[in-house]
Amino acid sequence: MNDKVKFIEKNVCAPRGFKASGIACGIKKAAKPDLALIYSEVPAAGAGVFTQNKIKAAPLLLTQQHLKSQTLQAIITNSGNANACTGKVGLQHAAQIATTLAKSLQIAVNSVAVSSTGIIGVPLPIDNILSAVPELVNFLDENNGINAAESIMTTDTFSKETAVEIELSRGEKIRIGGIAKGSGMIHPNMATMLCYITTDADIAALPLQKALTEAANNSFNLISVDGDSSTNDMVLIMANKCAENKPISDCESEDWKLFYNGLLTVCVDLAKKITRDGEGATKLITVNVTGAVSEQEAKQVAKSVVSSSLVKTAVYGNDANWGRIACAVGYSNASIDPDKLLISLDNLLLFANGIPVNFCEEAALDLLKQKEVNININLGLGTSNGVAWGCDLSYDYVKINAAYRT
Amino acid sequence: MNDKVKFIEKNVCAPRGFKASGIACGIKKAAKPDLALIYSEVPAAGAGVFTQNKIKAAPLLLTQQHLKSQTLQAIITNSGNANACTGKVGLQHAAQIATTLAKSLQIAVNSVAVSSTGIIGVPLPIDNILSAVPELVNFLDENNGINAAESIMTTDTFSKETAVEIELSRGEKIRIGGIAKGSGMIHPNMATMLCYITTDADIAALPLQKALTEAANNSFNLISVDGDSSTNDMVLIMANKCAENKPISDCESEDWKLFYNGLLTVCVDLAKKITRDGEGATKLITVNVTGAVSEQEAKQVAKSVVSSSLVKTAVYGNDANWGRIACAVGYSNASIDPDKLLISLDNLLLFANGIPVNFCEEAALDLLKQKEVNININLGLGTSNGVAWGCDLSYDYVKINAAYRT
Repeated sequence: MNDKVKFIEKNVCAPRGFKASGIACGIKKAAKPDLALIYSEVPAAGAGVFTQNKIKAAPLLLTQQHLKSQTLQAIITNSGNANACTGKVGLQHAAQIATTLAKSLQIAVNSVAVSSTGIIGVPLPIDNILSAVPELVNFLDENNGINAAESIMTTDTFSKETAVEIELSRGEKIRIGGIAKGSGMIHPNMATMLCYITTDADIAALPLQKALTEAANNSFNLISVDGDSSTNDMVLIMANKCAENKPISDCESEDWKLFYNGLLTVCVDLAKKITRDGEGATKLITVNVTGAVSEQEAKQVAKSVVSSSLVKTAVYGNDANWGRIACAVGYSNASIDPDKLLISLDNLLLFANGIPVNFCEEAALDLLKQKEVNININLGLGTSNGVAWGCDLSYDYVKINAAYRT
Repeated sequence: MNDKVKFIEKNVCAPRGFKASGIACGIKKAAKPDLALIYSEVPAAGAGVFTQNKIKAAPLLLTQQHLKSQTLQAIITNSGNANACTGKVGLQHAAQIATTLAKSLQIAVNSVAVSSTGIIGVPLPIDNILSAVPELVNFLDENNGINAAESIMTTDTFSKETAVEIELSRGEKIRIGGIAKGSGMIHPNMATMLCYITTDADIAALPLQKALTEAANNSFNLISVDGDSSTNDMVLIMANKCAENKPISDCESEDWKLFYNGLLTVCVDLAKKITRDGEGATKLITVNVTGAVSEQEAKQVAKSVVSSSLVKTAVYGNDANWGRIACAVGYSNASIDPDKLLISLDNLLLFANGIPVNFCEEAALDLLKQKEVNININLGLGTSNGVAWGCDLSYDYVKINAAYRT
């Protein structure tokens, strides 16, 4: 984030040439919105990053196939059913959705990305989806990004959207917007994150993919709600050139870096919103690591601390438990010298020189009672930094996830 | 486990030539036992495995130093205070304990192992410990292994002991016994496991170390309570030759394999007891993986499933959630073909051919309500097997770990 990047209103519809839609097609009960569409008026360069889980949902396999064209024009997503572990019929359903939407929008079928989230192992109610496509297309509007954001929610408690405007080196202004859903669950299933990003920048598919991969590594791959990763995780971006900037084709160029910074801002903002809305979470935990021998090790330490169940329960209990933090630093596999390690809550030092500091417990309690808790760790060994985000572990996490499937 | 190995009475005192002791020296409140001693009447070959955490407690550093002699004769352990993150004074305290005990027992100081568990970052109440050494030594008896087992408990809800007798190739009988403490916690600290094993076998230090390392890898390193590993974890073994068997010096020999099998039986039994007593645990979960391309990958899959918070909460909630199991298999990084994967609860098949099986929910519920839940996974790709043990994740885990330090 720098002065070339500023937050603006709206979401996937903030960039020029994009429309969105979200309606209820009857997958979820109580007429909740469950079908979303994001559409570019012109074919856009497309890129994606996908779950590393070796069990991949059917729509994800289809979308990976379509992305070989490096072009996207529409992203359709249903919530309420993940179309995962559904065998051949699942692949057929994903293909039917793409074909029906392509026909309705009169676009190439391999420019359609299909995505699903929700219950797994149950065939999609495909007729509900296919028969709702005309209404979904009809509802497309540049003011309906919020409807799309709401239609991809599962047990998310709020919808997640963001947008930025970036000034390129020649003063041209481009926009990037996004919506996401977090690790909500409905049974029987698993934590799932989805994120769809649009931009009106003119950027070729390869530099776009590189920017997305790096931005995802420095945002979505640095958050932890419960350490599980799903069959459906997907981040997609469409770049439709409507900003008419000088094309960005070189990853070493100033403009690519400016674009990347804007994209990273969008991804970090959405990643933090997903984390804050983690199941049962009452607080956002940010772990900042400095003084590491490499950026890789800094991130490793930050992720180790933010993923520790013992740190997460301590934060939930407002416990300034530097011992658990030190322990998670110690087993991160990064280079550590306990005598050089500094651990702080914001600026309140808890641990230094290999032993605890005699800190003010009341000051620590005040910091821990905030909605955002910052754990700062200086390894004292090098000049590299890293950050990771997570949430606390509460009774509600157990409650949400221990419920019987019924 | 085979017919050459049978469980017998007692614990670290089952092998000949060992005595134990356990008393209250005032570290814990309410006069609870908090100081343990295991003693061999003659110098014994010694070996150990230690936490991989880079932040190591003072007694652990001292014990690693002493083990260079490959000889142990006494193991002294206090509970209630981990002597971790205590700086130079912590190292001094550990050394004082070893010196005082060695003098009292009239043995070499570097044949003394020192170990601590409990609160971290607080200096040991060293005077309590040093002045209790004479009483601790005086109380040594071959019937007092149970007192030692009780003296190393923190928030363990039961003491953990076991012993086996093994028939070697020439009919000679040797014994192996052990005590352990599990992942109990007192604030501010972390999960900690300690295990002390004795044997009257005549086995040299190097084959003893190799047997211990492999047995720990196939037992303690395959259990997961909450994924955190501590500053104090330690497994020690003393072999005092009192069985007068033909010395075991060759790791390829029949007798080494028989010894290893017996040691593995002791370690697995204690590992399962630690897991069953995991914080807040209501059930022991065993994950058996077959059909893997390698033993390494089989263990990887088993550990991934048994460590998944989503699987653990599902088991707590009696939810036959094959989707979460499949998901954890998928992100284990092992080779997976979803279409060949079989997932069962005991013999009740839940998932096959890439899709869920229409199983009997009542039968699944019956299996999940047991104190021991067995998840069987066949990867269908090879001939290698692996196992891991864990426990469910309950409200009580959060309750125990979210408490304020006070």
